[in-house]
Order: sequence, then C-alpha cells, then structure tokens
Amino acid sequence: MTFKAALDDFKFNLMDMGLLKSVQALPGFEEVTDDVVLAVLEENARFVEEQIAPLNAVGDREHAQWSNGQVKTVTGFKEAFKAYTQAGWQALQHDVNYGGQGFPKTIAAITSESLHSANLSFALCPLLTDGCVEAIYQAGSEEQKQKYIPPMLEGRWTGTMNLTEPQAGSDLALLNTKAVKQADGTYRISGQKIFITYGEHDMAENIVHLVLARTPDAPPGVKGISLFIVPKFLVNEDGSLGKRNDVWCASIEEKMGIHASPTTVLIYGDNKGEVGEGAIGYLVGEENAGLAHMFVMMNEARFNVGVQGFALSERSYQQALAYAQERVQGNVEGSKGAVPIIQHPDVQRMLHTMRALTQGARATALYTAMHQDLAHHHPDIEQRKQFKAIQEYLVPIVKAFSTEMAIEATSLGVQVHGGMGFIEETGAAQHFRDVRITAIYEGTTAIQANDFIGRKTLRDGGAVGKYFVAEMQKTVAELQASGNEKLGFIAQQLEQAVKAYHVSIDEVLVMAKEGAMKAAFSGSVPFLMLAGYVHAGWHLARAALVCEGKSAPFYQTKQATAIFYAAHLLPRVTALAATLKSSRIVADLGFTE
Amino acid sequence: MTFKAALDDFKFNLMDMGLLKSVQALPGFEEVTDDVVLAVLEENARFVEEQIAPLNAVGDREHAQWSNGQVKTVTGFKEAFKAYTQAGWQALQHDVNYGGQGFPKTIAAITSESLHSANLSFALCPLLTDGCVEAIYQAGSEEQKQKYIPPMLEGRWTGTMNLTEPQAGSDLALLNTKAVKQADGTYRISGQKIFITYGEHDMAENIVHLVLARTPDAPPGVKGISLFIVPKFLVNEDGSLGKRNDVWCASIEEKMGIHASPTTVLIYGDNKGEVGEGAIGYLVGEENAGLAHMFVMMNEARFNVGVQGFALSERSYQQALAYAQERVQGNVEGSKGAVPIIQHPDVQRMLHTMRALTQGARATALYTAMHQDLAHHHPDIEQRKQFKAIQEYLVPIVKAFSTEMAIEATSLGVQVHGGMGFIEETGAAQHFRDVRITAIYEGTTAIQANDFIGRKTLRDGGAVGKYFVAEMQKTVAELQASGNEKLGFIAQQLEQAVKAYHVSIDEVLVMAKEGAMKAAFSGSVPFLMLAGYVHAGWHLARAALVCEGKSAPFYQTKQATAIFYAAHLLPRVTALAATLKSSRIVADLGFTE
Repeated sequence: MTFKAALDDFKFNLMDMGLLKSVQALPGFEEVTDDVVLAVLEENARFVEEQIAPLNAVGDREHAQWSNGQVKTVTGFKEAFKAYTQAGWQALQHDVNYGGQGFPKTIAAITSESLHSANLSFALCPLLTDGCVEAIYQAGSEEQKQKYIPPMLEGRWTGTMNLTEPQAGSDLALLNTKAVKQADGTYRISGQKIFITYGEHDMAENIVHLVLARTPDAPPGVKGISLFIVPKFLVNEDGSLGKRNDVWCASIEEKMGIHASPTTVLIYGDNKGEVGEGAIGYLVGEENAGLAHMFVMMNEARFNVGVQGFALSERSYQQALAYAQERVQGNVEGSKGAVPIIQHPDVQRMLHTMRALTQGARATALYTAMHQDLAHHHPDIEQRKQFKAIQEYLVPIVKAFSTEMAIEATSLGVQVHGGMGFIEETGAAQHFRDVRITAIYEGTTAIQANDFIGRKTLRDGGAVGKYFVAEMQKTVAELQASGNEKLGFIAQQLEQAVKAYHVSIDEVLVMAKEGAMKAAFSGSVPFLMLAGYVHAGWHLARAALVCEGKSAPFYQTKQATAIFYAAHLLPRVTALAATLKSSRIVADLGFTE
Repeated sequence: MTFKAALDDFKFNLMDMGLLKSVQALPGFEEVTDDVVLAVLEENARFVEEQIAPLNAVGDREHAQWSNGQVKTVTGFKEAFKAYTQAGWQALQHDVNYGGQGFPKTIAAITSESLHSANLSFALCPLLTDGCVEAIYQAGSEEQKQKYIPPMLEGRWTGTMNLTEPQAGSDLALLNTKAVKQADGTYRISGQKIFITYGEHDMAENIVHLVLARTPDAPPGVKGISLFIVPKFLVNEDGSLGKRNDVWCASIEEKMGIHASPTTVLIYGDNKGEVGEGAIGYLVGEENAGLAHMFVMMNEARFNVGVQGFALSERSYQQALAYAQERVQGNVEGSKGAVPIIQHPDVQRMLHTMRALTQGARATALYTAMHQDLAHHHPDIEQRKQFKAIQEYLVPIVKAFSTEMAIEATSLGVQVHGGMGFIEETGAAQHFRDVRITAIYEGTTAIQANDFIGRKTLRDGGAVGKYFVAEMQKTVAELQASGNEKLGFIAQQLEQAVKAYHVSIDEVLVMAKEGAMKAAFSGSVPFLMLAGYVHAGWHLARAALVCEGKSAPFYQTKQATAIFYAAHLLPRVTALAATLKSSRIVADLGFTE
C-alpha cells in the first residue's frame, strides 16, 4: 500500500486557514515564502513516500536485533537515515548558527507528521535527536552547543533522552542514577535506564545521551535532579571521536509495536569502556535544575508524540480507504449485486470518523505549532507570553487527544478490512499496534490530564480555557450568521459542546476551590478528552466557514468532514462533561476489590 | 500472572440475580441443583486456572506452525485438549442422548467464559466443535447425529465451520465452492475456504468440516447454498476412520493475535487424498437450505464470541488490578512519598471502567443465555416464542457490545501498566491483540448492527426493544422508590439513558417507515452500541438494588461498580442517541474522497 503525504490538507491549514501568514509576519521568517514552503513540503513528501514509507512493513517483520551489546537496525534503515540527514531534514527546524535551516515549527510539524506516517519506528531516531538538540540549545553552554549540535544535525551523531528507570517511570522523583563530580569538573555517572529509544544502534558514529541523574548531596525528589550529556564516545577537542564511554546496552525490549525502533536498557558505570568505572558526563546548565531543562525537551516531545497519533491515523485511513474502494461485498439499496464496500453506510461512517478525527487533531496541532512560533518570535514580549500560555495549554490536548483518538482511528482502520485487518500481511494491524505506545510514552494520558488540570487550568484560573470558549462562541455566531443550513447544523452542535466545555472548566475550578482535588483528578482524563474533542471540532467548524461558497471538490469534502464531526463526534463532549459532573460521587467510591 | 475464574460474580448472577432459579424451574433441569452447579463451576475454575491459563503466553510466543499441509499446535495444547475433553467439558451443554451432559446454556456460558479468559486461542477449538455439534444436532439426520456427535464430545474428533472464501466474507451470497451430487447420494466438494479456525491441527484424530457450498443447479445468492459434512478422514460403518478425504490445509495466517489458533486456508478437491478428485461430502438437511442451518451455528457462535469479549476483559482487568496494587509511583493527596498506583484517581477510573464494562456485559450475556434456556425448554409454546424473540434480540447486542467494549477495556489494561503494557513479556498486550478479532469474526459489528436494525427491531415494529424500555422504566421506578441517595443517582442516570433508547427505537422505526434506510444504516452501529450500554447499565442497576442493605464487601463493591457505570458509561447512551438523530444529515453526505 502506497502512502501519500497529506499535502492538500497541509496546504489548506497553512494557506486557507491562515497559519502560514501569521508565521510569515514574524521577524526572522521573511524568507519562508509560500513558494519556499510549498517546495519544501513537496520535496519532503516525495522523500518520505519513496525512501521511508517502504521500510515500514519490513521493519515490523524484522525487528531491531540486539547481540552482545550491539543493536543492528533493520534492512534499509542505515541508508535511509543517511539520506534523510544528508537531504537536510534533520536540520530543518534548528538554529542556522549551529547548522540548522531555521524553519518555523509550523512547517517542521508538517514534515514530522509525514515522516511519522511513513514509518514511526524510523522517525523516532530523528525525533529524539531533535529533542536532544533542543535541550542542549536551550540549556547547554556555548561550547556544548558548538560541540554537539552540528554533528547531530548532520546525522553523524544521534541523540537520546534518558529519564526512565525501573522504579521511576511517570514519577521522576524516584530516580536514583548517580552522578559524582570529579576534580576536572566532569561527572561519573552510574545507574540503569530503561525504555531508551535508539539508546544503541548502528545508524550513526556516536550517540549523545541526555541523562537525568542525582549528585550525592542533591535534595530528594524532583528538585535534586541534574541533566548530563553522556556521549557514547567521548569527543576530542577537534570534534573527532575519542574513548568509548562506560555506557552499555544490556538488552532491547520485545514490544507490541514499533518493532524496528530499538527500546534499550542502558547500563551506566559497568567499567567496560576505555574510561574506567563510571560513564563520563558533562553537566548541562546548573546542578539540580535538570528537570526544568528536560521539560523543554519533553514539551517538544509531547507535541511530537501527538503528531504521531494523527500521522498514523492518516496512514491507516489511506489504507482503509483504498481497501474500501477495491473490496466488493454485499448489496446496498438499489444496487444490482455486490458493490465496493465504500458504498455501505457503516463503512462510510468508519472512514468519516477516521478522517474527521485525523483532520481535527491535525488542525489543532498545527494551530498549536503556530503559537509556538509566535511565542518564540513575536516582537512584543507581552504578546509572546500570551502565545506561550496558549501553546502550553494546548500541548497536553495535542498529546492526549491525538493519541487516544488514534487508537480508535487505527482500530477502525483494521475494522474496515474485516478479517483481512487481523492478518499481519495486510498492514492495517501494524498501525494499530504501533500507535498504542503513543498514549503512553512521553507522559501517559493521565499525566497529560494532571498537567492540563493542574498547570494549565487551575494556575491561571481557567483564563486560557475561557479565552478559547469565547473564541469558539464567536465561531458559533459566525456559523449562525451565515444563514446556511449545514453551517447552522454545525453551529448548533458546536454551541452545545462549547457550553459543556465552559461548564466543565468552571466545575474544575470549583472543585479545586473547595479542595475536592480527588474529584477533579477522577474526571481529569474525561475533561482533557472533552477539550480535545471540542478544540478539534472548533477548527473543523472554522474550516467549514472557510470552505463555504468554494466549489472545488477539496472544499466540499472538507465541509462534509466538518459536518460529520459535528454530528458524530461533538456529542461526545456532552457525555464526557456529564462524567465530570459526577466526579465527586465517583471520587467517594474509591476503589475496593 | 495467575488467572482466577470470576466465581463470585458468576454466583451473584446465578443466585442473587435469580438466573439459576428460572432455569431450574424448566423441565429437564431438575437435577441442576445449586450444589451441582457450584461443584461444576468450582471444578471448571480449578481446571482452566491450572491446566489452560498457563498455556496462554506460551501459545502467543510459539504460534501454531504449518509445514507441508500439517499444523503443529503449540506446546501443551494437545495434552490440554485431551484433559479438557476427558474431564467432560466438551460434553457439558449437549444432549445426553448423544453423549452430552445436558447442562443449561446459562451454565455453559459461564464455563465458556472461563475457558476463553484462560486461553482464547485454545478455547476456539472446543468452541467451533460445539457449533459443529449443534448444527448437526439441529439439522442432521439421526444417522449423522449418532455418527458424528459422540466422537466430537469425547474429544476424539473436532469440528469446524467453513463459510468464508476469498471473495465471500460478510457476503455469503458470493460464495462459489462447488458440490456435485454422485450416484451414491454423496457429493463431491471443490473450492477454497479461508479463515477456517482449527481447519487442520494435531489435537484430534479427525476433523468434521461443516462446509457451505453450491450444487450446480442451485439458485444464485444465499438461497442456493447447501450445508455439507466433510470429514478429514471418512468414517467407516463401525465408526473407525477410513480413507483420507480430499481436503487440504494450504497455509495458515500470520495474525495480530490468537497466535496459537491455526487460521487455515483449506483446499477442497485437489486430488491428493485417497478418494479421487473432490472431497466427499454429506448433505445436512435439504439442498439450498444450508444458510438456515448454518445460522443456528452462527447465532451460537455470535453469542460465544460476545462472551470472549468480556472473558478477555476480565483477564485483562485482573492483570491490571494486580499491577496497580504492586506498582509504586507518584504521590496522592496526603500521602508521604510514592504510593501504589491503585491509589491514583485516574488508575481507579480505568480499573472501574474495565470492571463495570466487563460485569455489565457479562450480566447481559448470562441474562441472554437464560432466555435461550427458556426458549428451548419452557413448557408453554407461546412463551417459548417470546423468550426466543428476546434471546434473538439480545444476541447482536451481546456480540457487538461485548467485543467493542473489550477493545477499550483491554486497551485500558495496557494503559494501567504504563510503558510495561507495551512490552510483550508483561502479557497485557496479548489480551488487547487477541481480543481485536472478536469484533470482526462471526459477523463484524456492522453486520450485527444490520441484523439488530433489520431483523430485530424493524421486523416486530420495535416490540422487543420497547418491552425492554418498559422493564427498564420499572427498574428506574424501583430505584427512585428506594429513597436511597446512591440508588437515586443511578435512577437519574438510567432514566435519561432509557429515554434516549426509547427515542432512538422510535427514530429507527420512523426512518424505516419513511424509506430513509441509508440514514438508518448510517446510525446502525451507534444504535446497537447505545442499546448495549443501556442494557449492561440496566443489569448493573438491578444488581445495585439487589445489593442494597447487604453489608458483605462483594455487595458493596458491586454497588460501587453500578454507580460508576451510571456516572461514566451511561452518559455515552445520550451521545450515541444524538448521533442517530443526525443520521439523515450524515447519510446525505455520502462519502467523497
């Protein structure tokens, strides 16, 4: 099954929905013209379709292989990674001063989506490298930036994030990897990290591990965590590779999906290298400030994992659509004999659901990426703060909604195939298996929901949430004012959903005010999911307005997608809000076996 | 992870909810005393926990292996099947006149659940054999019954259902396997069947294939399909095995789950046996009446696949619960340091959701099984008809709701484990992968929904549906009359859901009356799912009434489960009903790319 990057919808979001214009108005992005952007997107589409997508099924069958501390990646990955980095894709969104190309996040989010659609297992290596680059860029010294960033952008080295330990997953307070300061200012790191994506592989000369660890006198909990650069091979003054550091891959995991992505167990300080006992690490920023630095990286990563959700939904949708057009089975009203199953109302419902969720999640994410660009580049510092608040509010929505809906969307992708969907050869099952991790890693849905309630809703008294409620109400008014029946239907559905959103924000605020935090957290995931449904529905409703009166088939279809979303998906907001309303009763139940 | 059969909940449904009393009152079930039933359930629990459950992970890793037409099942299956059949479990629900034990369906549904929880891949062999026995029992000649049923109940032979062909899956009208009558009254069968579960294996001496095929002069479509017995080895007069028949296993499928269950491609008529060209088959019943006979088997199978849904949800729940009790991570309000994650509100939400869905689906299924017993054994023929109508109405609900909710429940089972859930060794992922087929085989959810609208709602003008609405309203009144606050909460939630159910039935009737069938079928899956949610919620609401005033922990927990269901799951009914309300708008959209 051929994958095609969703160029039309990318262009729609950028051009018709006005995202690109907002970005182009920012200082530093003057050269990001429409022509340049289109050229980049088309070249990126061609590249991932031809060179990356075909490796997806291969990797699922072969799995990354561990042997004696080494990891052999699957057929074609090494060459593909070389091609990817040589074509400059790894450098796209990074600072020109360190070898980057300085493209806006809004564009990088799109190329990232296509890469993830093409091959999630492959894409994780560039993704983690992006995160590593970003953390060093934000928190590292000038020397560290110059030393580590350019080789990563060139694809000679890759990067990782080392957070999790067996006893410390969601709860980083529990981590106990040790970092002991040496006379020369370096640190010796020892401990065990698990779930380290691409912690070992054969696609690059060196691997830059970013490691969270504790110094001996650090305070307990998350306030005593420091961030270190621990390269697999030490780097000489001239940038050449030196001694083998004391970090080792003890094994890789056998997982439900993303089989081609090595998920490694790393041992620090096993005295097997050329540096003596303890991996040599270099402090990034200040001691005990590691979590804040890692959060930079994690917010990036969370956004990108959200992108993975709709990226795989898009690919699953394309595959289901193609199958539905080909497979002949069953009659419909008025047909003479069996018809392609795409004519069956329930197959249409499934394809509509997949597409509406995918496009709604994408619109939400690209809108978020645009706000990240605004937050970083807008000339007005006050406005930058506001844009940042908006972006940060949206990150948990993008992460949790896109990935949770993706489980449903890719499951429908299996379902459209009927029995064939369960057969691995078909390929539909891989998307369903692969995407399942996205609602877990980089913070589970519950972690996102805690963040959404705690830091994003309560801290500002619901201000950003209510800003969106007001914006959404304006859209409702515009839809109503159109006098168009279909837009009126969307208005009616959206109005109800926005009302439920508004009420829910207030309920969370009241629960917090009255100290009913257990109740609030009992409803936190429903609250976050309802926000996701209404934000995605709002963007599609805005899209429906933009499409009104335009006769090209793309616009007609987009409007149909918005109508379907309003009919089938917006009602979920009310149901989730009802759940939240009963939170106190549920919290009182506790849990007994 | 140890699996335990859900004995307490089985007993609750049988004893407290009164299912067993209704069955015991039927002629022929006088000996099915409480003591006998409890002994059977306890012995069954012990058997599946000790002998079947431990093979589940093994089978997932090993996969059934095909080689040169033979299928080797995984380690331990052959011995386990021998133990299973020798202990008499295969005979449990069948007629004593053919070697069965004559137990009611209500009891068989329970032992079937535990077997499926223990090992879905294994359980499929007995399940298909049950279906084969049932079809021969209902439609076969006396000679066929005597010849084929006893060896299947003894476990010497197993049975299969051969419906699907590459071009004929959901649409049996398209099947074209040929059956040509011979001078001796037998038929020669040729063609290809796919997705035949346990179509070849090494666990028994012989396999009895039930095959749908067409005679040369048969009318086109489903009215020209006949049913044949095609044994792998012909059976001599004395019951001993004779020549190898011309049916061959060409390959088995590589699937997302149920790896230990061989899903075979069978070739009929390849002239490789000892009988010449064409497999020898024996007509069951009349020519061209095959579909009706197969429907007997399919209805049984559909019910049992529904059971699989909550069976795997139960096992997934037990595993998630155990993990949540052990895994220490993160603080909660008032805790000093990290706590077992079961104390986190969102983990409680997930476990509650899993348990509420599982127990609601189980209660619905056992209530359905009881009606099957009533439909077969009640002395009054008019009442039997009514019971049959009720049972048949519920079968698509049991099949579709239990399996669709199971995707969610087992997904939550993965989620509770965090990152460990994605690692195969943990075992949580297997349930999620295994259960995915249940919403597909024996009629996809859409096929169930078409049946639910067409044959189960429109044919009787919504009579059975409205019977249930009235019954549910009575429960609402009882809950309200209790004066108890918690029961009052359930009443309020159930009342809304029942109202939505009622309105939805009427809407389907109106759409059909006005010829808006495309609209009706656009909303058919939401309609079926909302029925599932409200039926399951109704049974739990009834359970909450039964539990009121009882202080034993089980009853308290059951009531909490009912309250949670009312708070978190009943609101979905309203959302699904809202979807149905927009069906005409959605149907008008059609689907354009």
